Amino acid sequence: MAQLLSSSCSLTLSSRNKPCLKPFDHGSTSFSCKNSTSPFRRLFLKENKSRKSSVVIHATAVSTSREAPVQTSSGDPFKPKRVMVIGGDGYCGWATALHLSNKGYEVAIVDNLIRRLFDHQLGLDSLTPISSIQNRIQRWKSLTGKSIELYIGDICDFEFLSETFQSYEPDAVVHFGEQRSAPYSMIDRSRAVFTQQNNVIGTLNVLFAIKEFREQCHLVKLGTMGEYGTPNIDIEEGFITVTHNGRTDTLPYPKQASSFYHLSKVHDSHNIAFTCKAWGIRATDLNQGVVYGVTTDETAMHEELVNRFDYDGIFGTALNRFCVQAAVGHPLTVYGKGGQTRGYLDIRDTVQCVELAIANPANPGEFRVFNQFTEQFSVNQLANLITNAGEKLGLDVKAISVPNPRVEAEEHYYNAKHTKLVELGLKPHLLSDSLLDSLLNFAVQYKDRVDTKQIMPSVSWRKVGVKTKTVTN
Amino acid sequence: MAQLLSSSCSLTLSSRNKPCLKPFDHGSTSFSCKNSTSPFRRLFLKENKSRKSSVVIHATAVSTSREAPVQTSSGDPFKPKRVMVIGGDGYCGWATALHLSNKGYEVAIVDNLIRRLFDHQLGLDSLTPISSIQNRIQRWKSLTGKSIELYIGDICDFEFLSETFQSYEPDAVVHFGEQRSAPYSMIDRSRAVFTQQNNVIGTLNVLFAIKEFREQCHLVKLGTMGEYGTPNIDIEEGFITVTHNGRTDTLPYPKQASSFYHLSKVHDSHNIAFTCKAWGIRATDLNQGVVYGVTTDETAMHEELVNRFDYDGIFGTALNRFCVQAAVGHPLTVYGKGGQTRGYLDIRDTVQCVELAIANPANPGEFRVFNQFTEQFSVNQLANLITNAGEKLGLDVKAISVPNPRVEAEEHYYNAKHTKLVELGLKPHLLSDSLLDSLLNFAVQYKDRVDTKQIMPSVSWRKVGVKTKTVTN
Repeated sequence: MAQLLSSSCSLTLSSRNKPCLKPFDHGSTSFSCKNSTSPFRRLFLKENKSRKSSVVIHATAVSTSREAPVQTSSGDPFKPKRVMVIGGDGYCGWATALHLSNKGYEVAIVDNLIRRLFDHQLGLDSLTPISSIQNRIQRWKSLTGKSIELYIGDICDFEFLSETFQSYEPDAVVHFGEQRSAPYSMIDRSRAVFTQQNNVIGTLNVLFAIKEFREQCHLVKLGTMGEYGTPNIDIEEGFITVTHNGRTDTLPYPKQASSFYHLSKVHDSHNIAFTCKAWGIRATDLNQGVVYGVTTDETAMHEELVNRFDYDGIFGTALNRFCVQAAVGHPLTVYGKGGQTRGYLDIRDTVQCVELAIANPANPGEFRVFNQFTEQFSVNQLANLITNAGEKLGLDVKAISVPNPRVEAEEHYYNAKHTKLVELGLKPHLLSDSLLDSLLNFAVQYKDRVDTKQIMPSVSWRKVGVKTKTVTN
Repeated sequence: MAQLLSSSCSLTLSSRNKPCLKPFDHGSTSFSCKNSTSPFRRLFLKENKSRKSSVVIHATAVSTSREAPVQTSSGDPFKPKRVMVIGGDGYCGWATALHLSNKGYEVAIVDNLIRRLFDHQLGLDSLTPISSIQNRIQRWKSLTGKSIELYIGDICDFEFLSETFQSYEPDAVVHFGEQRSAPYSMIDRSRAVFTQQNNVIGTLNVLFAIKEFREQCHLVKLGTMGEYGTPNIDIEEGFITVTHNGRTDTLPYPKQASSFYHLSKVHDSHNIAFTCKAWGIRATDLNQGVVYGVTTDETAMHEELVNRFDYDGIFGTALNRFCVQAAVGHPLTVYGKGGQTRGYLDIRDTVQCVELAIANPANPGEFRVFNQFTEQFSVNQLANLITNAGEKLGLDVKAISVPNPRVEAEEHYYNAKHTKLVELGLKPHLLSDSLLDSLLNFAVQYKDRVDTKQIMPSVSWRKVGVKTKTVTN
């Protein structure tokens, strides 16, 4: 029976009947549900025939000792302990979940694993071979003794989300659970609509779940620096004080996003700000820059913990993609003039920033915005850095300009503030020669896995059409 | 056969097979489809058994003479002639469709009639008895000889929308087709999600349809003054020039919407602005104030053309609702302190503004924002105006403060610009004693139809929950 249940982890089952908590011991062969006629068993036996939407699957090896939830009263500091990481199987989410677990937080991952489905459908793959989420969590447990709970399901399914909230009772929710690729959102109409629907409705559901079930829970939401666009004035952290016709107010910083993905994050920010005001939600919007790197202290512990590394034209981002291009002798693909300047950060700083946000929660009703990056680079600057680092390793690196598939300014002013996380204690890992060395070596190590067909940009902002693109190789 | 088809207008049929154009003569008993084995007939006969999503229903009595679509080339002015009014069965949409038809535009109404369903589900009704959309259009034809085409379906169904676009080939689209009540969006989670999904995805679909099928088509989109909230500085028309740390840029005016409905319009505005930049869409965002009044030149022509008049706590808005309260001796319900100040306009100016926007289209790639209102009033000022006007008519009018169901500032600075439509030629109908007299008399005329149970606010911004509210009387 335990084998049968273990092998069924990837099934999607109905969440209509509330499953018992900790239904099975994922780390051993024993079935830990005490009541052998538990709702979960009945559910499993019944639903195995007719697959439904989603089920809460707990992958903890032993029952997590649960303290009474920390209640905040005025004057008492809010000390979060139980953290739900939505999208915890993704690039930033997985690294964050492990980091928080390592730092002593109790962690649950909520994920519908659709990021893995995108890879299948588009014929893409991570440069690094990544383990299943079930094996990842099991390995983490065996190495550290720390449990991470796992809820497999879609947060757009409110029935699933509400069960998850009521079961796990989080003090903080880190919300990475969105379609996160700008090119993906520009493939065709149906992907554009999917991106906005999935991201906006998922976040709305999280806000309603917090209001209804965990009103003190702190929402730590991943936004993007791309929400701001490239204005001709300094970018502030979320708000700007404007004096106009003799009067002054502090207002949300104007948003000029440049893809349906980036726009979905703008919509989220507006929705969250409203619920902070109307319902007293406490929220931190992390407007993150472009993340590079792959290794964190935790993912480096075992090959089964290794993080994904995207280099393709859909999910790959500038610096990581350049490293792979350098490793396989492909020219670095600079889009257009290469003057596009953005904020960047090491993935080790992503996990550190999220931890700082959780440890220093927003106040009830506060909508707080942090710009989460450590350095600014233009694409040309990155290409030069990689070229120089590659030459030291004996790689022959060239950069070429390719027609820009996006609609964006290729030369522009850019100066974005990013002091709030530093004030909370962020110690940045700045981009260094040694990091570039290790990233390039990492790419070289896996270069046989590179599919060079996936490197060039394949999605045009201007040519996006209404016909669904079916991608075949 | 014609009778059978006529009686089937309210059926929702599949749009998968492309129906023949002008499938039947709605104004007579003859079946005008020339080919008796047309796809439409086969479709109807087949789909009558298994109802599907939607069908293009043309309700024109005769074939509309169709001129070649006006093509714009550089230097040639763009002269729109064929206008699609999405949401043309609603309060503003119906008045606008008739007005444009009267002014010589060819008009098609696209509507899924869901506003009528909301009334059924919530137990509400217009103060005025309104005819079916089919009878409205037939009456308009019999009175004026002017045809209005009718497409019944949901713009969130892209298959329906793309057929409609390709069939009608509009030069301008006026988009009223959204869930437009702030309280409705705050009833419960499912209505909040519906509102954002319906409005955002519907507008995305319209943008894709324009890009794919009618790239010169001008989008005239109904936004709301509520997108701006109540900042402590003057509200500009869509954009504000900011000087900050010695640099200057003109940026989108910051948005601070205060319901899931208002937020949906903010999301639309961001999405539209992006597509103007990325695809060269020409768009006008009409940030409309609160509309009052009921009669336009066209709706006054016959009782079957009369417009809807909402006075309930969900769809009724301040001035119209106050008139009904005064007519039935119900105290005017001022929410909280009554200092909430907003822009207002007569529905005769709504139709005039839309006509001006269409006649003076935005340029390709231009995202243009007009603040569409004519005067500012606080709720207390409106209550005083109605009280005084009522007394002259012998009505005993009192105003009371009721607990504010919304989360909003009740005393605040408010000064919003509204010059761009005046520059295009708007001649405002300012709120006058005679208009108040006629509105009050109108309400008195229909007072036996008033359901006083529907007058008080029933939706709380703070208490909105996740459980779906089932409304029963």
